[in-house]
Amino acid sequence: VGAVYCALVHHPVRDREGRTVTSAVTTLDVHDIARSCRTYGVAGYFVVTPIEAQQVLVNRILEHWRTGAGKTRMPERSEALSICRVSASLADVLVAISEREGRAPITYTTAARAMAAKPTMTYAAAGAAMASQSGPSLVLFGTGHGLATEVLEMADVGIEPIAGRAGFNHLSVRSAVAISLDRLLGSPATPSHNQGG
Amino acid sequence: VGAVYCALVHHPVRDREGRTVTSAVTTLDVHDIARSCRTYGVAGYFVVTPIEAQQVLVNRILEHWRTGAGKTRMPERSEALSICRVSASLADVLVAISEREGRAPITYTTAARAMAAKPTMTYAAAGAAMASQSGPSLVLFGTGHGLATEVLEMADVGIEPIAGRAGFNHLSVRSAVAISLDRLLGSPATPSHNQGG
Repeated sequence: VGAVYCALVHHPVRDREGRTVTSAVTTLDVHDIARSCRTYGVAGYFVVTPIEAQQVLVNRILEHWRTGAGKTRMPERSEALSICRVSASLADVLVAISEREGRAPITYTTAARAMAAKPTMTYAAAGAAMASQSGPSLVLFGTGHGLATEVLEMADVGIEPIAGRAGFNHLSVRSAVAISLDRLLGSPATPSHNQGG
Repeated sequence: VGAVYCALVHHPVRDREGRTVTSAVTTLDVHDIARSCRTYGVAGYFVVTPIEAQQVLVNRILEHWRTGAGKTRMPERSEALSICRVSASLADVLVAISEREGRAPITYTTAARAMAAKPTMTYAAAGAAMASQSGPSLVLFGTGHGLATEVLEMADVGIEPIAGRAGFNHLSVRSAVAISLDRLLGSPATPSHNQGG
């Protein structure tokens, strides 16, 4: 089974009007998503932002929990954040994973709405693909109003949107990541998940 | 199919040492969990705290999004928060649901770790039970270090813990609610969820 990586992308993403922008880092995204990633065995979690001041901010948080007062007080939080890294761009993420794994990852995008132009893979199929391939995978999550079209088009695989009920999907990115990881990686360790209902 | 309700409990919950305490309301829990609940068709989301100042705080947030500036700027957020209510106690939640539905809900608890003393139901079985019963259901989520033992013992059904990988579960309550709702209520609208992988 190949290693699975996640990236939380702050650029390039869309704003409410569909323009490509850089969103601001939310510190709680760093925490919540690291905790979900660590719980589901993700090998590395990249926070992607080109803004240097925000890279410094995230690194300061990570430092606090790696070596500072946080580590003694809440060891689980420290362990969760130990898999988090800051990257300036998606290209840098691909390089980092390739150097560690000896090959480039297969890239998967997630989106709250289906792209008309591109076929999508179900979560079940994407999870099965990750489990059966020997190389690494990288799952991309967009902040703001989602990954920019260029990222969706560049990626190897687009995963279907998470469908709620009654056509309303307004999940936070923190919740979307949690649900995605549970669907992609939760089954082997929780066999009851697919039984019965 | 009966209506499903959720409650985020701030009392009685456990602290790190297992003592029963009242945890503080986190405003982001109000937002994120309302968005997840609305996405999965939950009929009502109760924020339970006995502390009056915190009830006022949550009601002020809800008011801002129901009628204030928030509604115009972000209508989806306003719609999500429209299902959120504040309650002083779990007893008050049970009364509110009973009055609306004409009968008391079947109560389900969630927990990050299994209780040795109590048998648990899988998410799949609990989701199937909710889908097949005509009366209402209420799913309880604990803040802090989880629901107090008295709540776990009082409830009708305990749902199995969410198992990650490698025995590490340090999900935020926001992520745990998202995953729980997807497992309990996500299947009918996303048939691919239980296929294959």
